[in-house]
Amino acid sequence: MLKPSKTAFVPFVSVENMMRLVLHIGIEKVLTELAAEIEADFARWPLFDKTPRVASHSDVGVIELMPTSDGETYGFKYVNGHPSNMKRGLQTVTAFGLLADVATGYPLMLSEMTILTALRTAATSAMAAKWLAPKGATTMAMIGNGAQAEFQALAFKAICGLREVRLYDIDPAATEKAARNLAGQGLTVVPCKSAEEAIMGAQIITTCTADKQYATILTDNMVGSGVHINGVGGDCPGKTELHRDILLRSSIFVEYPPQTRIEGEIQQLDPDHPVTELWQVITGQAEGRRDARQITLFDSVGFAIEDFSALRYVHSRLKGTGLYQDLDMIADPDDPRDLFGMILRAEAASSTAA
Amino acid sequence: MLKPSKTAFVPFVSVENMMRLVLHIGIEKVLTELAAEIEADFARWPLFDKTPRVASHSDVGVIELMPTSDGETYGFKYVNGHPSNMKRGLQTVTAFGLLADVATGYPLMLSEMTILTALRTAATSAMAAKWLAPKGATTMAMIGNGAQAEFQALAFKAICGLREVRLYDIDPAATEKAARNLAGQGLTVVPCKSAEEAIMGAQIITTCTADKQYATILTDNMVGSGVHINGVGGDCPGKTELHRDILLRSSIFVEYPPQTRIEGEIQQLDPDHPVTELWQVITGQAEGRRDARQITLFDSVGFAIEDFSALRYVHSRLKGTGLYQDLDMIADPDDPRDLFGMILRAEAASSTAA
Repeated sequence: MLKPSKTAFVPFVSVENMMRLVLHIGIEKVLTELAAEIEADFARWPLFDKTPRVASHSDVGVIELMPTSDGETYGFKYVNGHPSNMKRGLQTVTAFGLLADVATGYPLMLSEMTILTALRTAATSAMAAKWLAPKGATTMAMIGNGAQAEFQALAFKAICGLREVRLYDIDPAATEKAARNLAGQGLTVVPCKSAEEAIMGAQIITTCTADKQYATILTDNMVGSGVHINGVGGDCPGKTELHRDILLRSSIFVEYPPQTRIEGEIQQLDPDHPVTELWQVITGQAEGRRDARQITLFDSVGFAIEDFSALRYVHSRLKGTGLYQDLDMIADPDDPRDLFGMILRAEAASSTAA
Repeated sequence: MLKPSKTAFVPFVSVENMMRLVLHIGIEKVLTELAAEIEADFARWPLFDKTPRVASHSDVGVIELMPTSDGETYGFKYVNGHPSNMKRGLQTVTAFGLLADVATGYPLMLSEMTILTALRTAATSAMAAKWLAPKGATTMAMIGNGAQAEFQALAFKAICGLREVRLYDIDPAATEKAARNLAGQGLTVVPCKSAEEAIMGAQIITTCTADKQYATILTDNMVGSGVHINGVGGDCPGKTELHRDILLRSSIFVEYPPQTRIEGEIQQLDPDHPVTELWQVITGQAEGRRDARQITLFDSVGFAIEDFSALRYVHSRLKGTGLYQDLDMIADPDDPRDLFGMILRAEAASSTAA
C-alpha cells in the first residue's frame, strides 16, 4: 500500500495517554487550568454556536452528541449515560470527543473523554462555586461517591480552598473507595453513614448520583440558609436529585437554559421560573451570590462548551509530549477529486508488492 | 502502565484498511451488498429514530453530525462539506462514523467514512434508480466528475445494468480523471464537451456537483419525458443543481422530507409541494414510476440511515479479516465507579516500572 500523507492523520489521545498527560501535568494543576479555560470560554459565551445536545433515549439509557463551535474551532462529544451499566461492570458514562478546523472541516484531534469529562465536570463545578459559594467555605458534603466524586473533591480543593470533604453514598463500598482514593491528597476526609451526617457543617453540598429517575437525595429540611448546592447528578429528562421545595427557596444558576429546562433540576418547575445564566455572572451582567443567607444552586447538566474548552486544553498541552497516536482517518488522495483513483493505486501498489 | 482490558478497545477501520476491505471483497460486490443493506433498512424505516442532521454552518462550509438508531444499534457520522477545500488540495467531503450498542452505550466500531460515504451514496442512488428509472435504462449522463463520479457509475452498472456512462464536468481535467479511472471497468465511457452532449440518449441523468450556491446544472429544455434524474449534489441550504421548472414537471422522491425540504432541490418549492418517501415505494405503500413518459427525480441529500447501514455492513464484514486496529478509547477500571483509582494505579505502576 502507498503511505498516507501527513494530512491523512488525526492525533488520537487514548485513555492511557490521557492518564499519562494528567499525571505529567499534575491532577490539581489540570483541574485549575481547565477551570480557567472554561471560565474564559463562558466569558465569550455569546460567540458560540449553541444547541441543546442531540439525545437518543432508550429504556436503559441515553446516547448523546454535544456539538459547539466558536467560529474557528468546532468540537463535539459523544457520551452515553447508562445507570444499569455498573451492574455489568461497565462505566455509567463513557465518552470521546473531537476537535475540527471550521475553515476546512478537517479533524484536529480525537480524544478519549471519559476521564476528561470527569475532569471538566469537576472543574466547572468548582469554577461556578468560586462565584456562588459563601465566602470562606471550607467544608463540602459529597452525596454520591461514584466515578466523579474524587475529581469533584480535588477541584474544590484546588480552586475554592476546600479543606474537608464529608462523603456519603447509599452503597458504603462507594464511600470506602472514595475515602481510600482521597487519602493523602491533602483533604480531611470524613466518611458518613447518612446524608444528614454528611451535610453537618458543610457550606457546600454536592449531589452526584446516577439513578435515571426522579429521586430525592436532599429533602427540604436538610438545606439550611447560606448553603451552596452543586447539583451534578440530575442531567437528563426524568432524572432529578433535589426536592422541589429546595428549588423554590434557591437562587438558581444554570449553563444553557434551553437544555437545563429539559434535563436539570428545574424540569420540576414552571418553564418560566427565573434562572440566571452562569456566564452572565462571570461577565458582570448578572449578580451571583448577594448575601450570606441566600441558598445558591448550580443546576449543572454539563454543556458542550465545557467539553470544547477541555478538548482545546488537551490539544494545547499535547505538543511535545508524544502522548498521542496518529490515526489514518482522512482519505487524502493527491488530487482531492480522485478518491476512486486512490483505491485503484492502492490495488496496483499491493499487487506490485505481492 | 497497566494494560487496558478487552472492554476498553474499539475496533478502528482506517482509510488504508477500508481500501483493503473494498479490494478484498471487490468494489462492485461491495456496492451491491451495500445497496441490499440500505434497501433492507429502508424497508423497516418507521422503526428508526430519525432526526434531521445537526449542522454547523460557516461562510466556507458545513460540519454535520448525522445520528440514528434502530433501537439495538446506534450510529452516527461526522461529515464536512467545504467546496473551497479542493483549491487547497483537500477533500470537499471527509467523514468518519461510529457504531454503538444501545444497551450499554459502548462504541462497537469507529471507521473512516470518506470512502464509505462515496460507496453508500452511490449504492443508495442505484438502489433508488432500480425502483424509479425507466425499464431497460442502460445509458447514464454523469454531470459533475468529482470524487463521487466513478462510484456512481459502477453502482449503476452493478445494480441497474448500466452499460454506457457519458461524462461531463466544467473542468475537463475532472472528466479525464473519471474516464481514466473507469477504463477497463466494463462500461462504455464517453467524455463529453457539454452537459447537452452528455444527456444525449441517456435515460438516467446524475448530477453530482459541489458548488455551495444555487446553480443550474440542468435547464428545463434539457430534460425530456421518461428520464430519471438522480440529483446528488444539492445537499445543503442554498445549494441546488436543477432549474425549478424541472421540479414542477417531475415526480419527486426523497429520503426524509424534514431534511430534504431544507437541503434538497425541493428547497426551491413550496413547503407543502407533494413528494413521495422512497421507503414507502420499497414497502409498497406508495407508487414508484407509473409510466414510461413520467420524469422521476430522486432528490437525494443523504440520510443518516444510509450511513448506519454502511457502518453495519462494514462491521459485519470485518470479522476474520484483521483489517482494523484496536483503539484504547474507553476507560475501563476494574470497579466501574473507580475512575480516579485507575489513574492512581497507573501512577503507581509507572513509578514501579521506573
